[in-house]
Amino acid sequence: MTDIWYTEKYNNNLGLTFKIKGTLHCEQSDFQKVEVIETEAYGKMLLLDGLVMTTEKDEFFYHEMISHIPMLSHPNPERVLVVGGGDGGTVREVLNHPSVKEVVLCEIDGAVIDVSKKYLPSIAGKLDDPRVKINVEDAIEYMKRQNKSFDVILIDSTDPMGPGEGLFTEDFYTNVKNALKENGVMAAQSESPIMNQKELGLISNLLKKVFPIVKTYIAPVPTYPGSFWSWTFCSETVNPVEIKNEKAAEEIEKHAKFYNKDIHKSVFVLPNFIKDIVKQ
Amino acid sequence: MTDIWYTEKYNNNLGLTFKIKGTLHCEQSDFQKVEVIETEAYGKMLLLDGLVMTTEKDEFFYHEMISHIPMLSHPNPERVLVVGGGDGGTVREVLNHPSVKEVVLCEIDGAVIDVSKKYLPSIAGKLDDPRVKINVEDAIEYMKRQNKSFDVILIDSTDPMGPGEGLFTEDFYTNVKNALKENGVMAAQSESPIMNQKELGLISNLLKKVFPIVKTYIAPVPTYPGSFWSWTFCSETVNPVEIKNEKAAEEIEKHAKFYNKDIHKSVFVLPNFIKDIVKQ
Repeated sequence: MTDIWYTEKYNNNLGLTFKIKGTLHCEQSDFQKVEVIETEAYGKMLLLDGLVMTTEKDEFFYHEMISHIPMLSHPNPERVLVVGGGDGGTVREVLNHPSVKEVVLCEIDGAVIDVSKKYLPSIAGKLDDPRVKINVEDAIEYMKRQNKSFDVILIDSTDPMGPGEGLFTEDFYTNVKNALKENGVMAAQSESPIMNQKELGLISNLLKKVFPIVKTYIAPVPTYPGSFWSWTFCSETVNPVEIKNEKAAEEIEKHAKFYNKDIHKSVFVLPNFIKDIVKQ
Repeated sequence: MTDIWYTEKYNNNLGLTFKIKGTLHCEQSDFQKVEVIETEAYGKMLLLDGLVMTTEKDEFFYHEMISHIPMLSHPNPERVLVVGGGDGGTVREVLNHPSVKEVVLCEIDGAVIDVSKKYLPSIAGKLDDPRVKINVEDAIEYMKRQNKSFDVILIDSTDPMGPGEGLFTEDFYTNVKNALKENGVMAAQSESPIMNQKELGLISNLLKKVFPIVKTYIAPVPTYPGSFWSWTFCSETVNPVEIKNEKAAEEIEKHAKFYNKDIHKSVFVLPNFIKDIVKQ
């Protein structure tokens, strides 16, 4: 059989290339091209507009990091909002926290949810949990209507171009702040500190205009550009480096592939070149 | 002009692909194929037997990590041995430590040294420092003759196949231990915790047979397989997580792109899946 390879080019000069078994799904939704391909190295892979969103084998890096760090920075998160994240991986991790009573998933593209449920059940399988409310809507509009509604908001968006663009603005972040309850916390994916240094710097600057506490944290994500990723934590009052619920953290640590209590602190330690980018 | 790309395949299923400007050098030495190509993304790149060894733009990740962590775990390293490392990057970083009186580079393949000096002066430029003694010899033989000779030994080898294979054995590690002075320390590159999990586990097991203190540490290296790498620190007496010379560490931190005093501790914090591999 002919070898078939899929290459995600990070720019005109560099890419990661995957041997694939075949294409399982390909559609043009109202917002983007939605594809699922099966790779030899990483199992099934979700692509949006040709960019790798998640894979069965390495999704835990990203989903544990975007969820457990902010969730365990809050003593008792009950209501959580996930923006984007239609693959369901972030929702699944949030539901592992026993304090959670409701998770709202606000995803602009229903096709991403449907495709993930069909082809990626190990990632999307908890979207049917009774604590989950799925809201297929542009989060920019949704956020305008919220007021002190959530303990934790997780912005699990695509890149700052395409459908996700409006989620990287001062206006949007201001509405996120207003949507948080007192002592609420948020975290947003903030691009690769290796491949998207300009974008990371811009996101950090914008967030600092809105939140008094802004802290970037980092971890590997093998199938993302540079294989190394950043998230940025924000709050009006909370220092995220301290775990607020030790018992919950120990429980999460038991079942996690990446997270543990020491990792909770170490991911906030930035190499000099990233300190220079985010000025933190 | 036609686009030319070089793809390093990590296995049969995955690879990183670089757009290249051209090939600067290609020879078959007595030990391996030695090439220098010029990439768009990472500048000039040294390849041995088709595997990326170092690039101008991302070499600092690897060279700072293999050197500063063990060097600053020692209060006063004067004599240092670098095994392999013919590109000179590790030697360059070692020379930044003011206590150093002599660095021996024991590299099996003189062609690597010659090519690096010619094409990669920003990496190899300190090989002419008067404190450096270059010894073109198989480190397996060299190590047998050493006895309590070095404060720090850094094993900057290729992978555990090809010319580097004999550097991943219990016999060799035992000779390394005997070559260390009292309270001496060593660190070895120990492969990718993402792409070479089996090799990392084997290296860790072997080192534990020889040294009572074995601690793996991790950091990104963008152009290496998985873009995430490990090194393993060993000693008979020394805990590497504590910096032994604060003043030297502050001086190194000032000029480093990656290293700082907080990083010195955080690189030893392992995610759960890596703890499982190295059983540390």
